[in-house]
Amino acid sequence: MDVTRVRAMEPALAELKDRLGRVADLRRTGNVLVWDMTVFMPPGGAESRAKQLETLEQVIHAHETDDRLGELLDALEPYAASLPVDSDDACLLRVARRDWSKARRVPTELATELVLVTAQSYEAWVTAREESDFASFRPWLERVIDLRLRYVECFAPYDDPYDVLLDDYEPGMKTDEVRRVFAVLEPELVSLVATHASDEKDEFMRGPFSIESQTALSRELIEAFGATWDQFRLDTTVHPYEVTFGLHDIRLTTRYSEDDLLSVFTAMHECGHGLYEWGVSPSLERTPLCTGASAALHESQSRLWENVVGRSEPFWCWFYPRLQKTFPEQLGDVSRASFQRAISRPRRSLVRVDADETSYGLHILLRFELEQELVSGRLSVKELPEAWNTRFEELMGVAVPDDRLGVLQDAHWSGGSFGYFPTYLLGTVLAVQIWEKARAANPTLDEQIERGEFQELHMWLRENVYSLGRKFTPAETVERVVGGPIDPQPYLAYLRGKLGTPLPA
Amino acid sequence: MDVTRVRAMEPALAELKDRLGRVADLRRTGNVLVWDMTVFMPPGGAESRAKQLETLEQVIHAHETDDRLGELLDALEPYAASLPVDSDDACLLRVARRDWSKARRVPTELATELVLVTAQSYEAWVTAREESDFASFRPWLERVIDLRLRYVECFAPYDDPYDVLLDDYEPGMKTDEVRRVFAVLEPELVSLVATHASDEKDEFMRGPFSIESQTALSRELIEAFGATWDQFRLDTTVHPYEVTFGLHDIRLTTRYSEDDLLSVFTAMHECGHGLYEWGVSPSLERTPLCTGASAALHESQSRLWENVVGRSEPFWCWFYPRLQKTFPEQLGDVSRASFQRAISRPRRSLVRVDADETSYGLHILLRFELEQELVSGRLSVKELPEAWNTRFEELMGVAVPDDRLGVLQDAHWSGGSFGYFPTYLLGTVLAVQIWEKARAANPTLDEQIERGEFQELHMWLRENVYSLGRKFTPAETVERVVGGPIDPQPYLAYLRGKLGTPLPA
Repeated sequence: MDVTRVRAMEPALAELKDRLGRVADLRRTGNVLVWDMTVFMPPGGAESRAKQLETLEQVIHAHETDDRLGELLDALEPYAASLPVDSDDACLLRVARRDWSKARRVPTELATELVLVTAQSYEAWVTAREESDFASFRPWLERVIDLRLRYVECFAPYDDPYDVLLDDYEPGMKTDEVRRVFAVLEPELVSLVATHASDEKDEFMRGPFSIESQTALSRELIEAFGATWDQFRLDTTVHPYEVTFGLHDIRLTTRYSEDDLLSVFTAMHECGHGLYEWGVSPSLERTPLCTGASAALHESQSRLWENVVGRSEPFWCWFYPRLQKTFPEQLGDVSRASFQRAISRPRRSLVRVDADETSYGLHILLRFELEQELVSGRLSVKELPEAWNTRFEELMGVAVPDDRLGVLQDAHWSGGSFGYFPTYLLGTVLAVQIWEKARAANPTLDEQIERGEFQELHMWLRENVYSLGRKFTPAETVERVVGGPIDPQPYLAYLRGKLGTPLPA
Repeated sequence: MDVTRVRAMEPALAELKDRLGRVADLRRTGNVLVWDMTVFMPPGGAESRAKQLETLEQVIHAHETDDRLGELLDALEPYAASLPVDSDDACLLRVARRDWSKARRVPTELATELVLVTAQSYEAWVTAREESDFASFRPWLERVIDLRLRYVECFAPYDDPYDVLLDDYEPGMKTDEVRRVFAVLEPELVSLVATHASDEKDEFMRGPFSIESQTALSRELIEAFGATWDQFRLDTTVHPYEVTFGLHDIRLTTRYSEDDLLSVFTAMHECGHGLYEWGVSPSLERTPLCTGASAALHESQSRLWENVVGRSEPFWCWFYPRLQKTFPEQLGDVSRASFQRAISRPRRSLVRVDADETSYGLHILLRFELEQELVSGRLSVKELPEAWNTRFEELMGVAVPDDRLGVLQDAHWSGGSFGYFPTYLLGTVLAVQIWEKARAANPTLDEQIERGEFQELHMWLRENVYSLGRKFTPAETVERVVGGPIDPQPYLAYLRGKLGTPLPA
């Protein structure tokens, strides 16, 4: 394309970027509303906040589906074709086209109804879970599934209805690929849990650990990983998560309990998400590319920092003395090896968010299976609790005592997020693949971590993963980073290594 | 209007309310953005937040000036005319028409430019104030005044350009009326300050007072006044204010210094604003009527709770023992009379926000005068610091040492808020008028306050002031509450009473 023709495209490109920038502003505005809602809002604010979110969603959907966006994208086709395929603008035009086409498939009424009904359904789930009362949640779940199936129909024809749902979190990935990866994992994880799981409790892991000290430790770790408080915050919530308000405004949330040290791992997990968002190339700010490539890639980073780094021997060589010093009464007499065993050993946990590295996958396999059956109509909502309990016992080898600790434990379905769960396990698998690449490039990483130095790892991830943002599809991103597709074998080898080589007590 | 014709109006009324409700949602969304920006946002977030605010302003302005709103208001004219003049719907249609007509006068470009430039100008002011460097702020102030004069021109013809600015805060009030009230106040306030001002310092007022204890006291007072934490929050910021996210979600902000007890008064002040917003009739929720009638009426409530109640003798009969118990080292040997004198006596303070009840008005008179001169072009921005210093010394009897403690002390002008300052003093005057009405209706209020009981006062204010929201103009609201226009005499009598009757030491 010659200079004159490129020049002619400039006003259209500028207008497109301006429109996409405003969508990004409004999405982040929604993030602020949700963050305040879950971190600070007094209970009295719930009703007004739901209306604010609904109104904002209407505004955003109108912006995202504007005819003018389509005209601009059409006009810019020849310009896009003339660019190097991995240039920022080429990627922007590709992703913007994809987002626009998807948004246009969904009528505003359906998009708005989904926001409203899932907000109400979430409230119904909170109560149902507290009271372990699936019957009261059932009509809501039925309604949510019905809406999600109407959403799926907007994307007909499709090979598998689950593909449509998965695509919102893993653009371009097919259900079949997930099945193939999970089919490799299932027998191995079942066997590892069956062989290594212990129900023995470690008294020293029960605290009490003061919240104040846990907060200080969390902040220390987040700083050690490289985050700076002029661009990060850490606050407290019920269900921890990371959310981005701007490339230089990253909000982490966590929770504390005096009875355990989970907050230390939660802080590292959410920090991993935060470092990813923080490391996106500044050239992508205020575009739809200024975020992670997919839910699984995001999870690969939270898992890498939380587990591959944060549960490793080098890490605790560095940090265990600090932990003992903080909690001398609880941990002064406990060897590092005992502590490390306590945070590594599989347990037959009923609850996903409390699960260890090994049994975690079984929680996901269960949900992935049930989601497909619900979406395909092979399983009714009425039959769901029994299916959950039966299948859970087969996988984990332990019976589910009630629905609160079973089918009602997670919020995702109440919010209509079918298709999200598998990304947790895909990310866990990817974390090990990416870690191995990082270590191959930086052979002294273990020694650095033993000294509490994370700079080189952070910078390698920034350069090779974070800076790309959402420029490429998840599959392309994975290919670029690890040189091949997602592969469960490194993760399985990693688990076997951890579980097969007990540390000296 | 017969039933059939009313029925025919229902769809138009419903659509109007839906549209106005969405504007309210978006305005409150903007409140959340600003609140987070000033309370929690890390410095890195400033740039993205400015873009989010700008984009949201564009969206809101588009909603507020939508042709369809005008069509609906036209269609509903006969319905409005058929309603009792003080019914919710009649007031809604009247106020919505007024808001729509005003918004339509202002081009989107100007509205957006004002948001952007004042955000930048605010940053320039922060730096200029820190460095007491008026010269660096001068071009920004010139630009802001220029934009505000363009705004004024949107409302031509007018009697006085200042009328246009004042109207944004005191709908319907004219500059002449403010001048008349202030002309009565000026000689009296100057004389009271000259007669009673003392430069003697009270060592016991310098603390140190621990922030933790001040926070506990602030929360206790807010609770005593009737607010409940399921619908209120209290957070910390640099320039305290109250902001509403919903009828049941009221956010107060305050600040603490170990060197003084101002936070106690700030808490009562912001609580007054909060109780007003909280007390608006639920039938007005999500309409433009769901807020206070004007800036002055709002200030009347913050001042009533902070000063008329919170600096009164009955109040400290109740609360002083509690304060002494909290700070026994600092206040254990200080009599209530000495403490009360310390919080009542006029001082020749340089800074408005630190001023006592009496000298406060002089700070406002100065600003009101200078604003009119700037807006009319009689005074240039270049001449402003000298004019400030000269006039300040005439009013207060003390010289201004530098611009930081002089013309640069307040943020308002950097934000373009010309016309706001007078409402502080109008509110202070109204507070006494409203208090006298409340006490006439509840003759034992003083005794109740002496016992720490505020329920009857709160309920009287709710019934007679708060519940009305923005249904009536400020003048109509004042007439309804106190049975006449704004009148400076009760306020002057109140000050004279306080200063003329020294308490026994």
